[in-house]
Amino acid sequence: MTVAVYPGSFDPVTNGHLDIAGRAAKLFDRLILAVFETPPKAVLFSVQERLDMLRLACAPLHNVQVEAFSGLIIDYCRRERAQVIVRGLRMTSDFEREFEMALMNKSLAPEIEVVCLMARTEYQFLSSSLVKEVASLGGSIDNLVPPHVASALQAKLPRLKEIQSGQKGG
Amino acid sequence: MTVAVYPGSFDPVTNGHLDIAGRAAKLFDRLILAVFETPPKAVLFSVQERLDMLRLACAPLHNVQVEAFSGLIIDYCRRERAQVIVRGLRMTSDFEREFEMALMNKSLAPEIEVVCLMARTEYQFLSSSLVKEVASLGGSIDNLVPPHVASALQAKLPRLKEIQSGQKGG
Amino acid sequence: MTVAVYPGSFDPVTNGHLDIAGRAAKLFDRLILAVFETPPKAVLFSVQERLDMLRLACAPLHNVQVEAFSGLIIDYCRRERAQVIVRGLRMTSDFEREFEMALMNKSLAPEIEVVCLMARTEYQFLSSSLVKEVASLGGSIDNLVPPHVASALQAKLPRLKEIQSGQKGG
Amino acid sequence: MTVAVYPGSFDPVTNGHLDIAGRAAKLFDRLILAVFETPPKAVLFSVQERLDMLRLACAPLHNVQVEAFSGLIIDYCRRERAQVIVRGLRMTSDFEREFEMALMNKSLAPEIEVVCLMARTEYQFLSSSLVKEVASLGGSIDNLVPPHVASALQAKLPRLKEIQSGQKGG
Amino acid sequence: MTVAVYPGSFDPVTNGHLDIAGRAAKLFDRLILAVFETPPKAVLFSVQERLDMLRLACAPLHNVQVEAFSGLIIDYCRRERAQVIVRGLRMTSDFEREFEMALMNKSLAPEIEVVCLMARTEYQFLSSSLVKEVASLGGSIDNLVPPHVASALQAKLPRLKEIQSGQKGG
Amino acid sequence: MTVAVYPGSFDPVTNGHLDIAGRAAKLFDRLILAVFETPPKAVLFSVQERLDMLRLACAPLHNVQVEAFSGLIIDYCRRERAQVIVRGLRMTSDFEREFEMALMNKSLAPEIEVVCLMARTEYQFLSSSLVKEVASLGGSIDNLVPPHVASALQAKLPRLKEIQSGQKGG
Repeated sequence: MTVAVYPGSFDPVTNGHLDIAGRAAKLFDRLILAVFETPPKAVLFSVQERLDMLRLACAPLHNVQVEAFSGLIIDYCRRERAQVIVRGLRMTSDFEREFEMALMNKSLAPEIEVVCLMARTEYQFLSSSLVKEVASLGGSIDNLVPPHVASALQAKLPRLKEIQSGQKGG
Repeated sequence: MTVAVYPGSFDPVTNGHLDIAGRAAKLFDRLILAVFETPPKAVLFSVQERLDMLRLACAPLHNVQVEAFSGLIIDYCRRERAQVIVRGLRMTSDFEREFEMALMNKSLAPEIEVVCLMARTEYQFLSSSLVKEVASLGGSIDNLVPPHVASALQAKLPRLKEIQSGQKGG
Repeated sequence: MTVAVYPGSFDPVTNGHLDIAGRAAKLFDRLILAVFETPPKAVLFSVQERLDMLRLACAPLHNVQVEAFSGLIIDYCRRERAQVIVRGLRMTSDFEREFEMALMNKSLAPEIEVVCLMARTEYQFLSSSLVKEVASLGGSIDNLVPPHVASALQAKLPRLKEIQSGQKGG
Repeated sequence: MTVAVYPGSFDPVTNGHLDIAGRAAKLFDRLILAVFETPPKAVLFSVQERLDMLRLACAPLHNVQVEAFSGLIIDYCRRERAQVIVRGLRMTSDFEREFEMALMNKSLAPEIEVVCLMARTEYQFLSSSLVKEVASLGGSIDNLVPPHVASALQAKLPRLKEIQSGQKGG
Repeated sequence: MTVAVYPGSFDPVTNGHLDIAGRAAKLFDRLILAVFETPPKAVLFSVQERLDMLRLACAPLHNVQVEAFSGLIIDYCRRERAQVIVRGLRMTSDFEREFEMALMNKSLAPEIEVVCLMARTEYQFLSSSLVKEVASLGGSIDNLVPPHVASALQAKLPRLKEIQSGQKGG
Repeated sequence: MTVAVYPGSFDPVTNGHLDIAGRAAKLFDRLILAVFETPPKAVLFSVQERLDMLRLACAPLHNVQVEAFSGLIIDYCRRERAQVIVRGLRMTSDFEREFEMALMNKSLAPEIEVVCLMARTEYQFLSSSLVKEVASLGGSIDNLVPPHVASALQAKLPRLKEIQSGQKGG
């Protein structure tokens, strides 16, 4: 049985993430969406909120499970007996960063494979941060995220603006 | 009559911005330099200071107007009945980011066109942040910005250092 | 009156070219699609065939004209009293090449402006060579080019294979 | 049962190809190395030679099979009832080309998944063309290809030089 | 006598930095490793700690000297009568940033040459920030930095986590 | 004494090459411009013509010597007891190719160092092939190459057009 882990901040989950998850779920016996509890950037949603939004969005995918994790992703994979890490690639991905992480993980855990799936054309330019930026400027995000995520984002707009000005360093 | 909007933080305006503005002013009937009031990064100059510096620098361009805006640029364009957004491209531009924003704007407002002009060779490597970095390290910026901007930057050096250390996160 | 020139090999014209042409035709008073007679790579269609295919495809655009040219594009622009060169940019464009040509043209003819429009999302990955490659391998190109171009390409498949093996240098 | 196809010219197979094949063979139930009979560039080795070299190199991998194919890779996958296309990515890959092909394949055959594996650090800069270039200039390729491939390449040096001068177009 | 300066934050020094330093020390008569006192990002180690770690690591290189600097690197070079600035390039370098800085320095100090050495294959993906990220997540960094740096980093883990959350702006 | 080799096709030499040569000549005791006799692409000028043009252009540089070479550049360096290979980098360089060659050379000859100098701003977009393309289309190349090279190129225009159509594979 092949177990795969699709790690991310999912802050919040987008239609692009869900597309990758659905495709990975067909390739592997079991897929764990692993929500990074404390990613190295400010998050808008708490880990519990991100888990809840993902679980609702992934309910139709029967072999997909949503869990939180912290620490190195390869340590998490080992604990879960997963052989595969799934990554979604977009033309606008930071390829250098992807290679750095993939090669670092490979050197730390040679038995775990990183598998990349390419985002489909209409999601090539879609990211969580673009979604947050458009929402904070008053634009519509209805085609970019599931409805329950759009509502949640709407409710968080005041906190989002707080984070944005906090990031300005003063 | 074609109205174009050239949006930016202009924190501060550089000779590269002014070159793009002058060229765009020749292409379209009216050009609005739209100063982003609250860009998603720390600004050195207040919106009023940025407007004043731009207005002085653009005084010779008779069909150019300088205004502040907030919110989505496409909403601003619609209010101003502008059909065109102007962007300057440099080899060192973040093309992915440019594409993301252009395609997002296109999907939100299909009737508005994004038009890119390429910076001339001598301005390929010139940006507001490079100007601020050189100034903060004591280098000369006389060839990079108009004289009144160089003076204004000199007067802001203490504030600039404050922002830089604020961005270090503690 | 602003006259713009959109130059290319158009070997053959794709839906992506037509989208750029339609958008440029709205921005400028007159648009000339300038078909490069002898581009520096093997062409599948004769210049007359390329002109004919383009003219049929552009018939609905009333301020668009299709012409052949040879030599430097800036010399052609000067003869036609055009102030603008239009280029379509895709994420998969060769940006370095675009910059090289734009800056070379700028240094040879400072009065002519190069204006870039970004391909829309669904055409980001569409090029004449991809169309020819897919056709030569037996795939469907019905969503990529107008119907009369698809037929013309079908009729040229033997010649296409000849060119491909000629390029192998053996 | 998941069947995967790893397509390529393999002209000749390198240690980098074999590393990807070995890793893909662990991920999927069956792996077919599909040798492109007539790739759109000059080949040094005949399709039979390329098949023989690959078969010898892959003999230790029990669920791997080596076959020739022509036409669209997605048509081949459908004939073989394969659900997955495997690609190796290197920092020096032509990402734009990879995306173009992946998205084109996705639009022609939505049910087939493209899965990318990243080359390991020591093979990041290894390609069939680099191997041929080094060999033709008299350098050692012993660490880059299996021994039987190195010998075969040595025997083909006269033909290699012929192709290289043929590609010069004159 | 040619004097070269290899500037950096060295926060902390990695095996990649030491490789570049060793190679540059062979090319030039004297090499100064110039530790940027107040780089425009948060540092984990004090300037004294970074100097100490570098000095210990470079002890075997007899023509190498380790010093702190602030202000513009070209002003420092002039004070030290250095003709050369050394930079290490990795595939994952920010080339645009490298070009911006190199061309800015060239315009401010035409007599000083920027010389780039390429990281060797095994260090192509190694950076101070990757080292800190892996360490903060509990991974082993023994192959990435000298032993005394690994220990120092271990001792700084609490401070590292503090900086990381400070950078989140919230 | 440090001997450096600056290899290239120099077909023909441009002002960008001469700038790099002049700067490298200041850094090293002796500089050999090594003209690749049979580069893997069609050349316009014979090796003798390329040597002659370079020698004339480099006459003022007293520690520079111009020679032809064939085979691997590292073998040539060893014969000439050179410790350094010089490369010019432009924003429009093929970085991947540069890295491939540099790392291959490093693995074949660890004792030889590759040193990269960055082209100055006004030469960032200048290459031998752009010069040939502009010349063949009737544009002025007076600011791009020395006068004797411009004349030589003018005399070769018929041959240039022959090569260009030869490369079209038809």
